[in-house]
Amino acid sequence: MRPYTHKVLYYETDQMSIAHHSNYIRWMEEAKMDFLDQIGFNYAVLEKKGVISPVVSVECHYILSTFFDETVTILVTMREYKGVRLKLHYEMLHPDGRVAAVADSENCFTDRQGKPLAIKRIDPAFHEKLCELAAATED
Amino acid sequence: MRPYTHKVLYYETDQMSIAHHSNYIRWMEEAKMDFLDQIGFNYAVLEKKGVISPVVSVECHYILSTFFDETVTILVTMREYKGVRLKLHYEMLHPDGRVAAVADSENCFTDRQGKPLAIKRIDPAFHEKLCELAAATED
Amino acid sequence: MRPYTHKVLYYETDQMSIAHHSNYIRWMEEAKMDFLDQIGFNYAVLEKKGVISPVVSVECHYILSTFFDETVTILVTMREYKGVRLKLHYEMLHPDGRVAAVADSENCFTDRQGKPLAIKRIDPAFHEKLCELAAATED
Amino acid sequence: MRPYTHKVLYYETDQMSIAHHSNYIRWMEEAKMDFLDQIGFNYAVLEKKGVISPVVSVECHYILSTFFDETVTILVTMREYKGVRLKLHYEMLHPDGRVAAVADSENCFTDRQGKPLAIKRIDPAFHEKLCELAAATED
Repeated sequence: MRPYTHKVLYYETDQMSIAHHSNYIRWMEEAKMDFLDQIGFNYAVLEKKGVISPVVSVECHYILSTFFDETVTILVTMREYKGVRLKLHYEMLHPDGRVAAVADSENCFTDRQGKPLAIKRIDPAFHEKLCELAAATED
Repeated sequence: MRPYTHKVLYYETDQMSIAHHSNYIRWMEEAKMDFLDQIGFNYAVLEKKGVISPVVSVECHYILSTFFDETVTILVTMREYKGVRLKLHYEMLHPDGRVAAVADSENCFTDRQGKPLAIKRIDPAFHEKLCELAAATED
Repeated sequence: MRPYTHKVLYYETDQMSIAHHSNYIRWMEEAKMDFLDQIGFNYAVLEKKGVISPVVSVECHYILSTFFDETVTILVTMREYKGVRLKLHYEMLHPDGRVAAVADSENCFTDRQGKPLAIKRIDPAFHEKLCELAAATED
Repeated sequence: MRPYTHKVLYYETDQMSIAHHSNYIRWMEEAKMDFLDQIGFNYAVLEKKGVISPVVSVECHYILSTFFDETVTILVTMREYKGVRLKLHYEMLHPDGRVAAVADSENCFTDRQGKPLAIKRIDPAFHEKLCELAAATED
């Protein structure tokens, strides 16, 4: 997996002169979309097929502030997938490798009306791929 | 019309220690929604009826910076409505009355598929109200 | 304590037609600022005195989506304060009382250069007030 | 000049299922920062030298909506620079070349206290470069 990078934008800074903490939650989404892209399941395509994936929970631990114009590298790893929820873990790194933040997200899958979807039935290839990654994680 | 107020939020500041200029465009939207509410046409209700109102253009002139925790008063006035486009004007004021910014927006009306809508036919009462306000402006 | 309310803004929605989850992290900040205000310690004033309060961690569990134009009520409660970190808990409620989300945040206190501050020494009255609220929580 | 590109992020969409119009104002800033970078004057470096560049006005005309996951190309061109204000023009294009939006911004230059700065004196090389680009525009 290619790590995802995000350059901190001016409008993401606040008057502490650091990237505002709420943006990290957005970068997690960017990195998650890139992760799905890289494993072959573009989220825009999934949504067109009727697979919606709302966020169930997020958690972020801020360790070292990030700054305007700095490139943050985000490593996404699969934590768990058992058919219903997708748990991802994120490590956000400064250019010199120091950890800026660690974070976790949990997503479910629903149809357009918000009813839970069994990915296994709706998109078996996507289900297989997620299972495969989850199994690799457990090793 | 009651003026709309917006308290500048911490996450709206940037590292110049002022409210980032992009937020003013968002405050214009907040004030426009409040304007529609006050004239009796809640936008959430309009959308449910199938009336979508995309923004066609915005313009904002920043005169005096605004700061965290400051309450900005926004005066919205009708500039023009001839059945197709709604042009609104905004004056944003500091608590002491000094002008912080002046702005303009232009909206059109479409159906859910993006096709132009004749408000006169779809929602005659809304059309009447907008015409009435536009006429008052011309005086 | 008066509960804090936030009306969901149009620009906070996403193409799932719900408030985007990253905004909840921002609402937590709004509610925290209001909480500090209500206990007599306005954050803008604290910052002017040189007390900066960066976020150390956030966590949010999304239970029921919130929607444009809906007023969300946010109840903030003190979870812990022992002189160094302030832990707050948030309950976000729909107008009918159903829980939309529960969340937690942790803040530290630093000077303008990012060095940890002992609130007890810098602002004893603020320290006292936080201790008092923390003690009430433990009961 | 390499054109700047921005991939529309999920959190930038709204419930019209298009990129919310306020984001275009942010993309203009991203493209402006990239423009300054490309002409050799990184804005983070300028700010460290004490040159702050607040936005004086913005204007954006939305022609064709942009969508999640779409890559928008932004062409920035110098409109005017006479030593005090920098006027830039932006063309935002869909992948197929159709114009999504056209926009303009105007920036001034101040010191950290907000007092107007004569770029010519503070940073002659930057002034020269901007003059050169402005002259090329007039041809």
